[in-house]
Amino acid sequence: MVDLDKILHNGKALFLAYDHGLEHSPKDFEKGDEFTGAVDPQFILDIAHKGGYTAVALQKGTAEKYYTVWGADERNEVPLIVKLNGKTNIPKVEPYSPLICSVEEAIGLGASAVGYTVFVGSEHEGEMLEIFGAITHEAHAKGLPVVAWMYPRGKWVTEKYGSDTNPDIVAYAARVGLEADADIVKVKYTGDRESFAKVVQAAGRTKVVLSGGEKTEKPEEFIQTVKDVMAAGATGVAVGRNVWKSSDPLKVTEEIKKIVFG
Amino acid sequence: MVDLDKILHNGKALFLAYDHGLEHSPKDFEKGDEFTGAVDPQFILDIAHKGGYTAVALQKGTAEKYYTVWGADERNEVPLIVKLNGKTNIPKVEPYSPLICSVEEAIGLGASAVGYTVFVGSEHEGEMLEIFGAITHEAHAKGLPVVAWMYPRGKWVTEKYGSDTNPDIVAYAARVGLEADADIVKVKYTGDRESFAKVVQAAGRTKVVLSGGEKTEKPEEFIQTVKDVMAAGATGVAVGRNVWKSSDPLKVTEEIKKIVFG
Amino acid sequence: MVDLDKILHNGKALFLAYDHGLEHSPKDFEKGDEFTGAVDPQFILDIAHKGGYTAVALQKGTAEKYYTVWGADERNEVPLIVKLNGKTNIPKVEPYSPLICSVEEAIGLGASAVGYTVFVGSEHEGEMLEIFGAITHEAHAKGLPVVAWMYPRGKWVTEKYGSDTNPDIVAYAARVGLEADADIVKVKYTGDRESFAKVVQAAGRTKVVLSGGEKTEKPEEFIQTVKDVMAAGATGVAVGRNVWKSSDPLKVTEEIKKIVFG
Amino acid sequence: MVDLDKILHNGKALFLAYDHGLEHSPKDFEKGDEFTGAVDPQFILDIAHKGGYTAVALQKGTAEKYYTVWGADERNEVPLIVKLNGKTNIPKVEPYSPLICSVEEAIGLGASAVGYTVFVGSEHEGEMLEIFGAITHEAHAKGLPVVAWMYPRGKWVTEKYGSDTNPDIVAYAARVGLEADADIVKVKYTGDRESFAKVVQAAGRTKVVLSGGEKTEKPEEFIQTVKDVMAAGATGVAVGRNVWKSSDPLKVTEEIKKIVFG
Amino acid sequence: MVDLDKILHNGKALFLAYDHGLEHSPKDFEKGDEFTGAVDPQFILDIAHKGGYTAVALQKGTAEKYYTVWGADERNEVPLIVKLNGKTNIPKVEPYSPLICSVEEAIGLGASAVGYTVFVGSEHEGEMLEIFGAITHEAHAKGLPVVAWMYPRGKWVTEKYGSDTNPDIVAYAARVGLEADADIVKVKYTGDRESFAKVVQAAGRTKVVLSGGEKTEKPEEFIQTVKDVMAAGATGVAVGRNVWKSSDPLKVTEEIKKIVFG
Repeated sequence: MVDLDKILHNGKALFLAYDHGLEHSPKDFEKGDEFTGAVDPQFILDIAHKGGYTAVALQKGTAEKYYTVWGADERNEVPLIVKLNGKTNIPKVEPYSPLICSVEEAIGLGASAVGYTVFVGSEHEGEMLEIFGAITHEAHAKGLPVVAWMYPRGKWVTEKYGSDTNPDIVAYAARVGLEADADIVKVKYTGDRESFAKVVQAAGRTKVVLSGGEKTEKPEEFIQTVKDVMAAGATGVAVGRNVWKSSDPLKVTEEIKKIVFG
Repeated sequence: MVDLDKILHNGKALFLAYDHGLEHSPKDFEKGDEFTGAVDPQFILDIAHKGGYTAVALQKGTAEKYYTVWGADERNEVPLIVKLNGKTNIPKVEPYSPLICSVEEAIGLGASAVGYTVFVGSEHEGEMLEIFGAITHEAHAKGLPVVAWMYPRGKWVTEKYGSDTNPDIVAYAARVGLEADADIVKVKYTGDRESFAKVVQAAGRTKVVLSGGEKTEKPEEFIQTVKDVMAAGATGVAVGRNVWKSSDPLKVTEEIKKIVFG
Repeated sequence: MVDLDKILHNGKALFLAYDHGLEHSPKDFEKGDEFTGAVDPQFILDIAHKGGYTAVALQKGTAEKYYTVWGADERNEVPLIVKLNGKTNIPKVEPYSPLICSVEEAIGLGASAVGYTVFVGSEHEGEMLEIFGAITHEAHAKGLPVVAWMYPRGKWVTEKYGSDTNPDIVAYAARVGLEADADIVKVKYTGDRESFAKVVQAAGRTKVVLSGGEKTEKPEEFIQTVKDVMAAGATGVAVGRNVWKSSDPLKVTEEIKKIVFG
Repeated sequence: MVDLDKILHNGKALFLAYDHGLEHSPKDFEKGDEFTGAVDPQFILDIAHKGGYTAVALQKGTAEKYYTVWGADERNEVPLIVKLNGKTNIPKVEPYSPLICSVEEAIGLGASAVGYTVFVGSEHEGEMLEIFGAITHEAHAKGLPVVAWMYPRGKWVTEKYGSDTNPDIVAYAARVGLEADADIVKVKYTGDRESFAKVVQAAGRTKVVLSGGEKTEKPEEFIQTVKDVMAAGATGVAVGRNVWKSSDPLKVTEEIKKIVFG
Repeated sequence: MVDLDKILHNGKALFLAYDHGLEHSPKDFEKGDEFTGAVDPQFILDIAHKGGYTAVALQKGTAEKYYTVWGADERNEVPLIVKLNGKTNIPKVEPYSPLICSVEEAIGLGASAVGYTVFVGSEHEGEMLEIFGAITHEAHAKGLPVVAWMYPRGKWVTEKYGSDTNPDIVAYAARVGLEADADIVKVKYTGDRESFAKVVQAAGRTKVVLSGGEKTEKPEEFIQTVKDVMAAGATGVAVGRNVWKSSDPLKVTEEIKKIVFG
């Protein structure tokens, strides 16, 4: 039986996501020409631990070298979501995210759940759905929840929906998550509470968490988004840059927690 | 030994199909800008149960979250067909439907039968026939019937046959189902009783069910189609939108049942 | 040890081939706008049985539903060749015939031999030779003969040889059969006895059977071809349309038998 | 431990190669419009036996039907090299040679060694190196030497090196053989003794045999080539057309043997 | 538990890399028109042994024929890194390096660690990351460190970063190594100490070694680079041409050692 409570608190999700080095390059960790503390996974795990996150999402390498084997200490009381696939942002091709870690390896690393990205609408959507199907089968058989990064992407998404935050395509992506057996889908904000409520409705018993996205210019904008998605029925948020690029990550965390956990 | 009676009643089929969220997007569940009850799989399972359907066809995620694990109750007295493959309608490529669920997983979800789509005539027809061949082998070895969504599709179908309801291509698709070992083929209506009778004839001992398709403007049109296909020798119908987009799904169901079960 | 006698009589082959529904569409079974009896696999199995064919070649679905499981009776005294691959004639691509049935499944269906098509010269020749290599290995390990439909096909065949009945390419295809370990190759007629004798010579210890091909306008033309190929050293013939599209299949069969079995 | 002595005599190699029916078509066996005796594998095995070849290289089908199962007699005292991959010369694509036979099957056929072609520089070089890597692993684990047909081929070879006998590319191909763990590489003549000596040097502990190639107009030309490559440090020669297209194969063989075995 | 000390000395790395015959052709071993001693793997193993290298990196064939089976003597006291993938420089395609050796085979050859190249930014990046993911899993399960040749390459790298030594892309490549679970990354020099320090920072607990690259015109240039990277926090260097193309390899080695081991 899949136990979602491993990565939730009172049924709500507060995830700290940290796979940006692979997905966007370490440029995400820079301020001016220097790296901030965010380049260091220990810094992130400290935030996760002190901030009371319900889970932290890492690639297998970061997990193995900072969470599991060498650096294990109180920081690994935060439940771990191992992200199973990932890619760089360099090749300009129809997006595909290769599988870098197996469910079995993730369990060995101490994962409480696994994560997987599906680029809905990409020419390679089918390959990702096939692998996602195998992952949900294996993870569920071993009692692990599956968090799906459901990201509309590729030329046909642009052509048909204009933007990857168009409510119709976000709702579609969330629904694909349900029908393909994700336990939680991580999706972008659609811009308003009403349309996000439809995303939640389309996802049915699959829970919805907000994908935090780029750091907003004004922190209060992000906080408003969190309020809107929670009011729309979301289960929580997965944050990254809006926290660890902030001047005071734990303060931002506290504000988010008030909204998410009520 | 494959036992078709698991998903038939008196040798006739009344299937409720519900994989539209994945195949077409949740737009199929909208009326105006709002979702109708049809967005909720529970609503569908209630129709299936109260309507006396001989089986309901779901993707693995919908099955797992509403039929098998969390929501099991009297609704799962309706036999389950797990649809093993599926895709979104976004990428504009020669159609291919990836395998999302294995026969083994479907059995674990409580399936009485499995379903698989073959896009006959697609550039990827061969890959689907290879996988279909493996599925019929495994399913039959475990006593499960296989229902094949035999859908002509792709640029060469358009070029050679004009339409995917051209009687010649529908009969061809049905025959491919027989030779590739489908137990039941689900095909579109060819437009008249005579040509549909030839489809049934081409399928031989493989049974034929009507694919209900888009909601007709006037319900009586759809009822007439059901009459024609049954008169043509079909084993039954697989309906979706013409039932759950109807203002009174159970009433439509009763009309269909009278024709199918006589 | 592979035992060819299972599908030969006095060392000669008289095969009834019936995979046209998949390969050409059920149009092959029409006369005017109606299907003839040939649309029904039972009709074919009756001819095979009454005509004393040394084997009948079927796709797995036709075999399972008419020969093996549900319809087994005296008709299945005729040895069965299960054709392992097949495709429709719709996609206009370099030809590839996907594997629909495994050797293991064919044995479960009661096969005395297996058949496989290699489109020699196609861009996908390599994939078919790889699979053919695995099939001959497995079939021979289990004592089953392998019949290879060696068909030159694709744009380079046309460019280099003009026609797929050019004696040079037919001899090449037969030789590929020998070197890739076919026990019997099924090839088209080259047009004259002398060139067909070279085909037989190129095939060495791999036996050669004529691929009957389209129904000839005058039956005596086909009979003359049978005489020529047998005189050229062929082991027999694999017939289909020239028999079951005939007005008197058993009479044509008798004429062929006189030539093949002498 | 791999034992090269199985296919060498006093440390020298005299291989008779005979896979031309598959690679070039049976046209290689013609003189005028008729086949010579060379079309018959028995003829070749007789030459191999009487000529005292240290091994004969055959495709699996020729091996199974003439060497192993049905024709086994004194002819199979000649050690067998089963060529594991092969292709026709018809498709005009970047060259790839599909795997037709496994190491395991080759052993079952009585092989003392296995052979595999790598088209160095082809767009499909990588796929062949991957398979070659698996073959050397498996063959060496079972004590079998691996002979690599290292043939530069494809548009980039032509563009960069002009010819596939350019000494730089032949030396490169031989070196790839060493680093990828071939025990013996079969390469074309580079045109002069000095450059061939560098090929041998580049191959290091991997032994080098001459690929005989097309029948030379004057037999003495070929004999001179054999002298040159042996003087350059080659381990021996792999001959085909220069022997079995000769009017007196055994006489040519004797001349070669004098040079190879000294 | 992975034990990096097997291939380090006092926590520092001095690797001798020698896969240039496969990657660049034996031209790398020439001086004028003749091969130098560097064409001979024994010559290299002697340098590795006498120079006190902490490991030598070889392809499987070179390892098997010179290190493991036939040539094993005191030279194999130097720990072995078996490079698992490799390719020639001939095909002008988006770079992909095929897997030639498995982790299991490398262990059988006596490897203390395995190496694998990822061409970051290539169209085939995804395939390499998938395989790299499987390799780190298997190697770590068996206690073997994984050294990743993290090389930015391909048209999009050129388009976006101009050069493969642009500090941004080198830092990105190093970070991919960390997140994908490399224990050591081998990267090119970025041109100055400050930017290389950021590469080391981006790699976190994954150690960084310098990829020596082409022989510099003046040896002191290379020595200066070694000083800079060590000052920047690198763990060591992997050298090849700057050592074995030198007139006095052991002298150069001594100079490097003084810097690396302090």
